[in-house]
Amino acid sequence: MSQEELKKRVGIESVKYIEDGMVVGLGTGSTAKHMVDEVARRIKEEGLQITAVTTSTQTQLQAESLNIPLKKLDEVDGIDVVIDGADEISAEFDGIKGGGAALLFEKIVANYARKIIWVVDESKMVDKLGKFPLPIEVIPFGSQNLYHRFESFGWNPRFRMNGVDKLVTDGGHHIIDLHLSRIENPQELAATLNNMVGVVEHGIFEQMVDIVLVGAEDGVKTLTV
Amino acid sequence: MSQEELKKRVGIESVKYIEDGMVVGLGTGSTAKHMVDEVARRIKEEGLQITAVTTSTQTQLQAESLNIPLKKLDEVDGIDVVIDGADEISAEFDGIKGGGAALLFEKIVANYARKIIWVVDESKMVDKLGKFPLPIEVIPFGSQNLYHRFESFGWNPRFRMNGVDKLVTDGGHHIIDLHLSRIENPQELAATLNNMVGVVEHGIFEQMVDIVLVGAEDGVKTLTV
Repeated sequence: MSQEELKKRVGIESVKYIEDGMVVGLGTGSTAKHMVDEVARRIKEEGLQITAVTTSTQTQLQAESLNIPLKKLDEVDGIDVVIDGADEISAEFDGIKGGGAALLFEKIVANYARKIIWVVDESKMVDKLGKFPLPIEVIPFGSQNLYHRFESFGWNPRFRMNGVDKLVTDGGHHIIDLHLSRIENPQELAATLNNMVGVVEHGIFEQMVDIVLVGAEDGVKTLTV
Repeated sequence: MSQEELKKRVGIESVKYIEDGMVVGLGTGSTAKHMVDEVARRIKEEGLQITAVTTSTQTQLQAESLNIPLKKLDEVDGIDVVIDGADEISAEFDGIKGGGAALLFEKIVANYARKIIWVVDESKMVDKLGKFPLPIEVIPFGSQNLYHRFESFGWNPRFRMNGVDKLVTDGGHHIIDLHLSRIENPQELAATLNNMVGVVEHGIFEQMVDIVLVGAEDGVKTLTV
């Protein structure tokens, strides 16, 4: 089975957690895309009644094209469940997100969600985080100086590019990816980054997830945290 | 002597710390404005040679109109001295800044400065911080939910307005002012705020200042930290 098939299978499976009347957070990325397609199918074919909140312009456009009823985050009183992808999940259920550049809005939506479900294919399950570059969303003003500071810490920073220009996120910021190879202590690194001036948000999602659905050759594994 | 006269006196005094060849950070606000005027006078009348970096659009416009040589923060290798105002300074030399809505860029510039000088009139010197509302720069996405969270903590939040609309900062964010009356432990509150999702930056400047110049009736007091 191809990786794409695994992503599709787990994306579809996750939608079983959605019930009538729920406010649902829709994540961003290649696996979340299949989940959004399935949400739209259930609305159309089964009459599922939900309100959705999106985590990026990309997901917003997909959901609008599929006629999923949408509200803004600030128009709802919390989120019942958010379903999103992840770029890496450690044995301790910490995650790295932001490969799709939507980490800030994803983390804000997750912050107001009563239940968080991540959908991944089995290649994303790792022992320790860090092989996947850690995205840091930064204020453009002074970001070159911040980049040099990251460099001086030995963090191997790279600006995320969009062609020849630095990528601009939905929030109007840049992203610097840290090539760390291995993160021994995600909590400690997260605290360091939270205290750094010019850092808007980082891609470490510490102990936030409630359920992880893993698409594998032999079916979907459900890991309850 | 009027408060405005005190501000002018201390603003002028602070410029004595600027020497030929320096990269100078120019702060924002009513006291900093007098400092910028004096910098321009010394350039014009005394041939002072400096490069300046500004902390806001407001100061940028003033400096441009006075023909002060400017560079962007990311075009310089650090700042020799930044001179800025403050809204409150405690007995422990923690400060609250952001009354002029420029706290984010002010804090970023201060973060790369080798020396930080604050210029204030004596009304700004307090025992404990908190009578002045504490400005929090927040991501607009989800900010209504964040506002409710601040409310639930008993922090008496108010969105900073610009007429009938929420104010938009130079960084493209909103400001929520917390009416706390008294901040017993600025370090603890700063850490809590740094860890909150959706908070870009807060107005507590912990132990950052090196020299405080206080304009008083009987002259300018110099406090070295």
